[in-house]
Formats: sequence, C-alpha cells, structure tokens
Amino acid sequence: MNPHYNKTYNKTVEILSIGSELLLGNIVNTNARWIAEQLSTLGLDHFRQTTVGDNSKRISELVKEISYRSNLLIITGGLGPTPDDITTKSVADTFHEPLYARENLWKEIKIKLGNKKSHIHNLGLKKQCFFPKKAEIINNPRGIAPGMIWQPSKNFTIMTFPGVPNEMKAMWKESAYEYIKSNFSDRSFLYSNTIKLVGIGESTVAEKIDALLRLDNPTVAPYASLEEVKLRITAKAESLSEAEKLIKPIKQVIEKKFSTKIYGENDDTLSATIIKELQKRNETIVFAESCTGGLLSSYLTSVSGSSRVFKGSVIAYSNELKNSLLNVPKHLLINFGAVSEQVAESMAIGAKDILKSDWAISVSGIAGPEGGNESKPIGLVYISISGPNSKTFNIKKVYNSLRDRNEIQKLSVIDCLNALRLVLISSKK
Amino acid sequence: MNPHYNKTYNKTVEILSIGSELLLGNIVNTNARWIAEQLSTLGLDHFRQTTVGDNSKRISELVKEISYRSNLLIITGGLGPTPDDITTKSVADTFHEPLYARENLWKEIKIKLGNKKSHIHNLGLKKQCFFPKKAEIINNPRGIAPGMIWQPSKNFTIMTFPGVPNEMKAMWKESAYEYIKSNFSDRSFLYSNTIKLVGIGESTVAEKIDALLRLDNPTVAPYASLEEVKLRITAKAESLSEAEKLIKPIKQVIEKKFSTKIYGENDDTLSATIIKELQKRNETIVFAESCTGGLLSSYLTSVSGSSRVFKGSVIAYSNELKNSLLNVPKHLLINFGAVSEQVAESMAIGAKDILKSDWAISVSGIAGPEGGNESKPIGLVYISISGPNSKTFNIKKVYNSLRDRNEIQKLSVIDCLNALRLVLISSKK
Repeated sequence: MNPHYNKTYNKTVEILSIGSELLLGNIVNTNARWIAEQLSTLGLDHFRQTTVGDNSKRISELVKEISYRSNLLIITGGLGPTPDDITTKSVADTFHEPLYARENLWKEIKIKLGNKKSHIHNLGLKKQCFFPKKAEIINNPRGIAPGMIWQPSKNFTIMTFPGVPNEMKAMWKESAYEYIKSNFSDRSFLYSNTIKLVGIGESTVAEKIDALLRLDNPTVAPYASLEEVKLRITAKAESLSEAEKLIKPIKQVIEKKFSTKIYGENDDTLSATIIKELQKRNETIVFAESCTGGLLSSYLTSVSGSSRVFKGSVIAYSNELKNSLLNVPKHLLINFGAVSEQVAESMAIGAKDILKSDWAISVSGIAGPEGGNESKPIGLVYISISGPNSKTFNIKKVYNSLRDRNEIQKLSVIDCLNALRLVLISSKK
Repeated sequence: MNPHYNKTYNKTVEILSIGSELLLGNIVNTNARWIAEQLSTLGLDHFRQTTVGDNSKRISELVKEISYRSNLLIITGGLGPTPDDITTKSVADTFHEPLYARENLWKEIKIKLGNKKSHIHNLGLKKQCFFPKKAEIINNPRGIAPGMIWQPSKNFTIMTFPGVPNEMKAMWKESAYEYIKSNFSDRSFLYSNTIKLVGIGESTVAEKIDALLRLDNPTVAPYASLEEVKLRITAKAESLSEAEKLIKPIKQVIEKKFSTKIYGENDDTLSATIIKELQKRNETIVFAESCTGGLLSSYLTSVSGSSRVFKGSVIAYSNELKNSLLNVPKHLLINFGAVSEQVAESMAIGAKDILKSDWAISVSGIAGPEGGNESKPIGLVYISISGPNSKTFNIKKVYNSLRDRNEIQKLSVIDCLNALRLVLISSKK
C-alpha cells in the first residue's frame, strides 16, 4: 500500500465531486463536507473543493490542473454502471493510460449481485472492474463499485469513491483513512473545541475577542446561526495533551469575557442543558404556547430523556382556549389583548397550576406575516416564566421586522429557553 | 443594470463558495445546490462549482482563473463584518481595483443596526459598505451586508452574496434573478413542475414510472426525503406555453398512476393543503400529542393563517396530564398502557370534546431511544382521528427500528397529517 510517496514534499489535498445532478442542483453535496471534516481531523491541508458534471473532457482538464498544484486528489462519484458513470475512464485518459479488466473483481461483483444470469453480459456492470494497470483497489464493503488508489505521476495520487454516501464512508473507514494517515498525514493533527453562546450577536462577539480571531495556533473562528454563535478553537499539535495545552488558556479568556452568555460546548444543545439542570434539581417544567405553536415543546422533546422533566404543554392559539385551558381571565384578554405582558403572565401561572409543575414558561406574540398593527407590530413577543415560590419573570421582545414567521417563532423559542437558563443559574440550588 | 454584455458570446457560469468553515467540513454547502437549481431553471450552462477558504491569495488566483474561462461568476460568503470576511477586497485586488466607502450604504447599515452608538466606530461593520467604483449594489432585504454586480473585465461579470442562506436567497429573488435572466439567459429556458407525493416510497414510485424516467424532454426525476417523494418534470422550451404543452401529458400520466398519493405540487406543503381544505369546509382542528411532543402542532402553525382552523393542542407527555387534561380514563392507562389504540382513541375524543373543535388528531408512541420493550418496541405509534359525528379512525404504525428519535417523530407527524388528508378526501363535502 505504499506508492513510495516523497514524504518531504508539501502535502496538499483537493476534493473533486463528479456528477451532473450536483450541477443541476438536484442534490446537496454532503460528501464534500464529510470528507473535508475527515481531512481536517487528519491535520491535512485542503485548499479547494470542485464539482463538475459527467463530462469526460471537463473531468480530464480539471484532473490535469489539479495534478500540477496538489499531491492528493479525492474523487467521489461516477463509478457506477450507467452510461454517465465515466470517472475511472476519464481519469485514466488524462494520463493516457488504458484500462484493464480485473477478472477476480468481476467475479466478486457477480457474487454481490447474486450471480443472476442477466448480469453476466451486462457491459455496464462489467465496466466497474476496469482499472489502470498499477492502480490499487479500494474494496467497497457496502456496495458494488470498488474505488482505486492510483499514482499517475510523481507526487500525485488519486483516490476514487462512489458518490453514494454510505458506500463512500464505509470505504473510507475500512481502508482509505489508514492509507491517507500513513502516507500523507504528518505527525501533527487538528483538535477542536467549540464554545456555544446564546443571546449575543456575532459582531459583538467578534468585537470583544478581536485579538483572538487573529491568532495562528490555535485559531479561533466564530460561526453564527439564527439561534446561536459558536466559537471554534482549533489547535494543530502533535498530541492531544499538547493541543489541550494550547486550547486551555484561550478557552479561559473566552469564558471570562462571555461568562453566562456561554451555555455549553461541542455537542451540547440549549434544550439538553436545561433538561440536565432541571433533572439535577429534581424539578419539572410545562409550557403554555401561543405564537410558537408547539415549537417550544418540540425543541425540548427532541431530546431523549426529556420526559424526566417535561410533563406537557397547552398550546392555546385561540383566546377561548387561553381562558378555558389556562384560566386566563376574560377581562385580561379583553382589556390588554392576547399579546400582552398581563396575558403572558397569566398563561404561565395558569399552566404551572393546572399542569402541576415547578416551572412554567408562556409565550404570546405576533409571528406574522398577518396580525400586526402600529401598537402591536409583527415581531412583538411576551415571555413569562413562573417558578417555585410563585415568583414570575416577564420579558418583552421586539424582533427585527425583517424576520419572517418561522424566524420569529424560532427566536422566541430560543429566548424562552435562554431566559429559563439564566433564571435557573441565578437561583442555583 | 446593463453592463453592455456581449450577448452573442457563449454564456458559461460558475459558482464559487468562499469560507474556511466549508473546507473544515463544519457546514454543508446548501447554497451551491440552491443556486445551481436556480441557474438550471434559467437554462444557463453551469460547468463548475468551487469552494475555497478565507485566504486572499487563493481567492484571487481562483477568480483570475475563472475570469479566463467563464462569463458569470456567482460568489457566496465572506461579506460579513469579521476579519475573515475578505471576499470583496480579494476580488477587487485580483483586478487591481481599489475599494471606496459608500456613505449612503453606511447610513442604511447603521439604520438596520438600530443606530446604536457602539456601531458607529466599528470598522468591521463599516467594511460592508466598501465596493469597487463601478460596482452596482445588490440590496440585502434580509440582513446587513449588501452584495455587488461588477464587471472587472470584458465578458466577465461577478455577483457577490452573503453566505447566510436566507439573505442570499432573498437577494437572489429580489434582484439577482431578473438581472441574470435579462443579461445571461438565452431564449430557451427550463420550466419545471414538481408533483408531491406522500405515503409511498421512492423505489415504488420509480418502478411504476420506469418509462417516464428515461424521457429526454421533458425529463422526469424523483427526489426523496424522509417526508415525501417529489417528481420533477422539466421541459426545455422557448416559451412557457410550449413548455406547458410538453409537461401536461406527462403530468396526467403521473396523476393517473398515483391519484390520492399526490397531495400537491411545487411550493405546496402537506400542512398548507390541510389548512386550505379545513378552511374551505369551515371546520377547526386540535391535537393531543404525546410522542411527537409539539412537533405536530408546530408543523401546522409554521403556516401563516393556520389560526383560522387551528385552535390549540394539549401535549400530554405524562399519564397524569393525559388523564387530567384530556379525560383519558385511568383504567385505560393502567390496562392498556399509554401507547395503545385505546388510549390514543380516548385522547382524540377527549381533545375534540374539551378543546371544542370539529376534528382532533392524537398520537401516542415510543420514539426512543429509551422506553421500548419486546411487546411495545421503539417505533410503535398509534394515531387516532376523531371527526364530526364522533366517528374515529385508528391507525397503528411500526417504523423501522433503524430510525432515530427525531425521524420517528417526523414520520409520525407526516402520517398524522396524511391520515387526516385522506379522511378529508373520503368525506368530501
């Protein structure tokens, strides 16, 4: 498995995804993300990803280009039996190498297909056992088409995989990972730690740790979504303990700067954090939802084990149900309207009482695009938390009018959960 | 908006995604797929997609390369306020063009940010109003950073968009689409019609219309997700009416083959279809959820206008609440367990009674990964629909044990909604 690769040479890797369905936008390229992540944990420099269609001339041009600037090319797609599967042939043509049938592989393929008679003369199927003479085969434990490891020129190696994600991944894990590790990875690898923040914007985060964002090793990079900001600290090191030594002081700076804005790290979710905390306190929670329409409950119940702290919810979309199910007095609904601090508070207290729990969160607002007016615009949301000792916490939010219905619903849910998290911190048992 | 483009020149387009998070494998490149699909409906030839990191030299090299071989380059990513957002600067550097601040844009940006004092001297934020002199601005209706349309050399135009998907899409729809259509699209274009099916698997669909899948114009292609199967019919034609003529007979064949498996087309969603139907009948609906934990309600309430038919729900996670809020008799819970046809039916009847609606759907099951046993395995779900005239419909589902918690919750929701859709069809008023 050793192509006598010149190990002193600089190791650069590229990913090439082949398939017209990608150019037509029919499918999302999840393979490139997965391979990129694998390369990154191997500490390999990886500068480009390219996608082309099933066109022999364009594939050849591109492979030639890449052979001049990179050392390892990972190709996915185009290894199957249909006429548009032309990857192996196009790659071989690039370097003017013929393909040869490998009869032992053909035998294996026929066995995998159940040795049906109809297959024996199927040229498309047989195509999958043709490879350049010096190519090594990458076994496909989850499907038919094998891949190859081929070094067509000095300091340039090509590895091919099918486009079917689970086949590609199985081949990677079974043989490609070890091959790449021993032939291309130097001793150093990348280790990451992600800090998760909520209730703060990306630009504020970036401003506060401007100096950290300019570091070389470890690097610190912010990633923002509607719901949270993540700060990923990535260290390049020769061992885990050395990486941890690099990451630790940076993590401490970040923790000091953002303190309670940080809700967790790595795979933590806001819901799971809250469930863990409530479970520790042996307390239960219920919700009374209006504008979020069930989304708040579904965030919590998407976590396995949520039933240990979550008893249930009332989604009272209509005023009638706010009154009949949550005991919200009619005069509050009439005098202040469903979207008001008074009604939100009454919903929380009613839910806590009627559903018999330690905590209740209520949320009432205008998610739009219908229903807003000047005094109560789209984006206006009232949140109320009722806790033990009947103390209530009321929050008013006015989300940016650029937000659409689903964004306002999601932001409301995050603010409900984050408000509870902060109340729980401040009332630590 | 016309850069005097030489219309006789061959129009080739490329997509360039910029962002180290893509090379590190932190996120999947969904933007490239979406843009690819848009280009394909515009009938534009699009041969390559490339991804690079936030590295000025590499971005410049690549943009230079692309300027030699293509006419239009769509760039996403790197327009934000943080130090690693360097797209505009790198692109301008490629053609040795300086950037100039546009004070009117800066004013707009400050307004969007609420004119907070802390922002006025934030250089990162101000960076977003710097562009080459001759660039046209693409307004960003959903966020802060604008994009640009810039023609740095003859027959080569660059359009830039932020990497945040909803901002990019809003900018595309508001202005980029029309610009590209009138400057780059030739007379023939692609017209698509998507038929949406539910309650049937992709391989069954493919088997039934094998011959249609081999057509050239229009083409028919199936796309499957966890929730549904879409059949996309795409015709290449010189006018809309010609395209419709090609598509119509194919659509009729599909409608005949799949009849009630088809719930809608194009942008229709299952929830919106049901809301429309209930509104037409002037009937209301409520839910009693257990294992779906609010997800069923949130599917319906994600649709604007759902309040016209949806009154509310009870999420009864605990047995206690199934009894106290939904009147499920204790003896049913004791004798049959919460996950049983008897309890599901009682939940639906209770919800309809107590929440006072025409229809109620209940769902109780084991979403896992905890809580399954031999007689009631993970994936077992009972659905019950209670309608006018107190008729109930009971459904038992056993989802594949390979499914995870969130998949079982989603599949349950789809089966609830689809069961109601079929009941509504069979009881057409």
